[in-house]
Amino acid sequence: MTKSYDVAIIGAGSSGLSALRVVRKQTDNFVLINHGSYGTTCARVGCMPSKALIEAANAFHLRKMLDAFCVSGAENLAVDIPAVLRRVRRLRDGFVAGMLNLTDEVKDHSIAGRARFLEPQLLQVGDRRVHAKKIIIATGSRPVVPGEWAVLGPRMLTSDDLFEQETLPSRMAVVGMGGLGSEIAQALARLGIEITGFDTSDHIAGLSDSQVNSVAVELLSAEFAMHLGQAAEPVIEGERIRVRAGNESVVVDKVLVALGRLPNIDQMGLENLGVALDDRGVPPFDSSTMQIADLPVYIAGDANRHLPLLHEALDEGYIAGYNAMRSEPACFERRVPLAIVFTDPGIAVVGHRYTELNKDEIVIGEVDFSNQGRARMAEMNQGLLRVYADKNSGLLLGAEMCAPQGEHLAHLLALTVQRKLTVRELLGMPFYHPVLEEGLRTALRDAASKLVGKDLADLAYCERMGADAID
Amino acid sequence: MTKSYDVAIIGAGSSGLSALRVVRKQTDNFVLINHGSYGTTCARVGCMPSKALIEAANAFHLRKMLDAFCVSGAENLAVDIPAVLRRVRRLRDGFVAGMLNLTDEVKDHSIAGRARFLEPQLLQVGDRRVHAKKIIIATGSRPVVPGEWAVLGPRMLTSDDLFEQETLPSRMAVVGMGGLGSEIAQALARLGIEITGFDTSDHIAGLSDSQVNSVAVELLSAEFAMHLGQAAEPVIEGERIRVRAGNESVVVDKVLVALGRLPNIDQMGLENLGVALDDRGVPPFDSSTMQIADLPVYIAGDANRHLPLLHEALDEGYIAGYNAMRSEPACFERRVPLAIVFTDPGIAVVGHRYTELNKDEIVIGEVDFSNQGRARMAEMNQGLLRVYADKNSGLLLGAEMCAPQGEHLAHLLALTVQRKLTVRELLGMPFYHPVLEEGLRTALRDAASKLVGKDLADLAYCERMGADAID
Repeated sequence: MTKSYDVAIIGAGSSGLSALRVVRKQTDNFVLINHGSYGTTCARVGCMPSKALIEAANAFHLRKMLDAFCVSGAENLAVDIPAVLRRVRRLRDGFVAGMLNLTDEVKDHSIAGRARFLEPQLLQVGDRRVHAKKIIIATGSRPVVPGEWAVLGPRMLTSDDLFEQETLPSRMAVVGMGGLGSEIAQALARLGIEITGFDTSDHIAGLSDSQVNSVAVELLSAEFAMHLGQAAEPVIEGERIRVRAGNESVVVDKVLVALGRLPNIDQMGLENLGVALDDRGVPPFDSSTMQIADLPVYIAGDANRHLPLLHEALDEGYIAGYNAMRSEPACFERRVPLAIVFTDPGIAVVGHRYTELNKDEIVIGEVDFSNQGRARMAEMNQGLLRVYADKNSGLLLGAEMCAPQGEHLAHLLALTVQRKLTVRELLGMPFYHPVLEEGLRTALRDAASKLVGKDLADLAYCERMGADAID
Repeated sequence: MTKSYDVAIIGAGSSGLSALRVVRKQTDNFVLINHGSYGTTCARVGCMPSKALIEAANAFHLRKMLDAFCVSGAENLAVDIPAVLRRVRRLRDGFVAGMLNLTDEVKDHSIAGRARFLEPQLLQVGDRRVHAKKIIIATGSRPVVPGEWAVLGPRMLTSDDLFEQETLPSRMAVVGMGGLGSEIAQALARLGIEITGFDTSDHIAGLSDSQVNSVAVELLSAEFAMHLGQAAEPVIEGERIRVRAGNESVVVDKVLVALGRLPNIDQMGLENLGVALDDRGVPPFDSSTMQIADLPVYIAGDANRHLPLLHEALDEGYIAGYNAMRSEPACFERRVPLAIVFTDPGIAVVGHRYTELNKDEIVIGEVDFSNQGRARMAEMNQGLLRVYADKNSGLLLGAEMCAPQGEHLAHLLALTVQRKLTVRELLGMPFYHPVLEEGLRTALRDAASKLVGKDLADLAYCERMGADAID
């Protein structure tokens, strides 16, 4: 028996639930199909538990700064790692429960099972057939685990397992120094675990600017060993694992594999959509409508590999849900790119990446935080921030940073890029004293001094007159 | 003998030095007159040493959070207050030295002494007379100490003395819960000193929004006793001081008086300028030119009582210096108001204060941080932030807050107000997950939902279509 719906949403994660919120405002005739447990990647195994771990690790790490602040006794501090992991799970359960409220509300509209396309408007789910005028694919992603790591069995962890551990061993390798790998490696090191990080790339945490990357590598390397630029491979040595990369090797108890995520679209019968899939199995789609080719099918969130970030997944779910309820898809302008890695100092990329820009057309402004006033007072004076602006217009195009409290500076820059402001317009805002934002201002002034037709005044004035700088 | 100059700058503080930087680019014929020691209020006794003290206090305070993060042994931590004060002075000396470089450079152009106006272009300095075509008054300010507190002698401290102490006693009163009083009282309490705060007002730290103020009072009161709404007075009891306010009283060893600052203009012969002074002795001046009436005299920085904040003093010095070198003064648009108090949670007022706004013309959006995701993970989930927007246009007019890491949220809002953006335009920026800025977004969405002609979409879109919210 085939039941017919206006809309079928496949996947009850962040993006699917975002689509659901739009769809259910306009129709009751929808179905939510989900395979496996409910609760989103973000809440279950992603952003939220990782930040709970990181905050605990940073709190314990502060003991290393206490001496500089004239506080003694730090040598007596000890962290209870099993308790930290229990706290992570307790907080996580709260966030997951928040997500489940919504899935509970629509349980009469839900089917548990794996959906497979028979035709663009027809799905097989177990022994049922589901027909829908519009279908939204929001099946999320899972960690990539290459075969040589998979064979390690329980000695190999991914972000899916890490937070489920009762405790953690004293020596671990983290394979993959992307965003997740870098922030988790630092957190585990700060909890007292001996960590060695590996990556085939010389660049970590999504940075493209080599100067910022060098600073990030140097600062993180002060906390844990890192081997970059060579592929790592495991060698089982009894109960332990030797991880080898070029001439480097280390023996550890467990390995965290953080090599990125794969979209959950490989067993969905996408070949039955009648469109050519790319070499990773992703169908062609328009990121401003989320529509797949000209089919009544949309693909949103991690499933499309486009921007596997929570805030983007929510936008994509919204766009897909919105368009599923219309005859003609509407085209949405996406937000300015923003990627943050929750290391300390914080790593972030805002707007255009350095490598995307034509170096002849930009000026670069930078600030080294090692002598920044507020950062010195807070014993967090390290890091580098670089801003990129159009040489002629002064438009701020992007920034990369490894900077104290970088996540906040990144948001200020994201608003600037989103609103298409120039470096001088940004310099017209008040910068209080003493704050880390004054470090950003140093970088902006550096960029402003290199602009064509330079006029250094960063104080707005009613009467235009070619004033000189406040420097 | 009378020497003649193009420009005389009275005062070598932040504002005077800012004026100097502009003036010396255009003339060598200037003089810098300074009474007393060099180095700015900000670097010597203001922003910088206070933040050095606060950062140490916050570091020691973290021990109270360690248990929540599953770190044990915090009971063994001890702070060495004399060492904290030495660190404050060491850092301060570095910042002061930075300021002195500039005054050293111009020492051939400097006169030590107190300047007194004989005429608008003629000054008496000791036994010399100084004539200048233009004169800039940048004499700064000093702490107000009413007579009943002054008689306490060395048992009474102001911000001028606090950082000079070798150590601090175990019980202190802080009289005045403005910005400085609030942040220093909390810092001293966090260093383990038993603090009692007093203010005649019910509002603290410059807040005008009673709801935000209530939260700020409640949170700070959890760390030290505070008696508001009654004038405090001292009663000497042997070696100690009883501070009384209404029915409340407390016996302490020392009192920090933080009752605001007075401009250093009372012995300058301003009566000889030929303009009427206001009841506080301040001459009439234009805050967009810094010119006093139509005289060739400018007044900048704390000396004019207008905006006694470092970043404003720098702007005013710049404007005064710029205009001193012109025949006709240029009019400058001042930056959006921004005031930050470095308590934890942070207190800030951005743009229009709540009490300045017509309540019939605005909508208010708010967020309570007690359940905010990131704040919960970092054990900093307390505080309230309220934004004010024009009901019809949606223009963001201002905000008041007592919020975790409020200084960063305040800068994001300051840019928004400076660029005259609407609530919806601000909602169009990316908010990463999980960050404290998502708390601000909650307040913005709350405000957006109350706007006239509501259209809740916070995702920008190319094709205008009246889309519904991503909620």
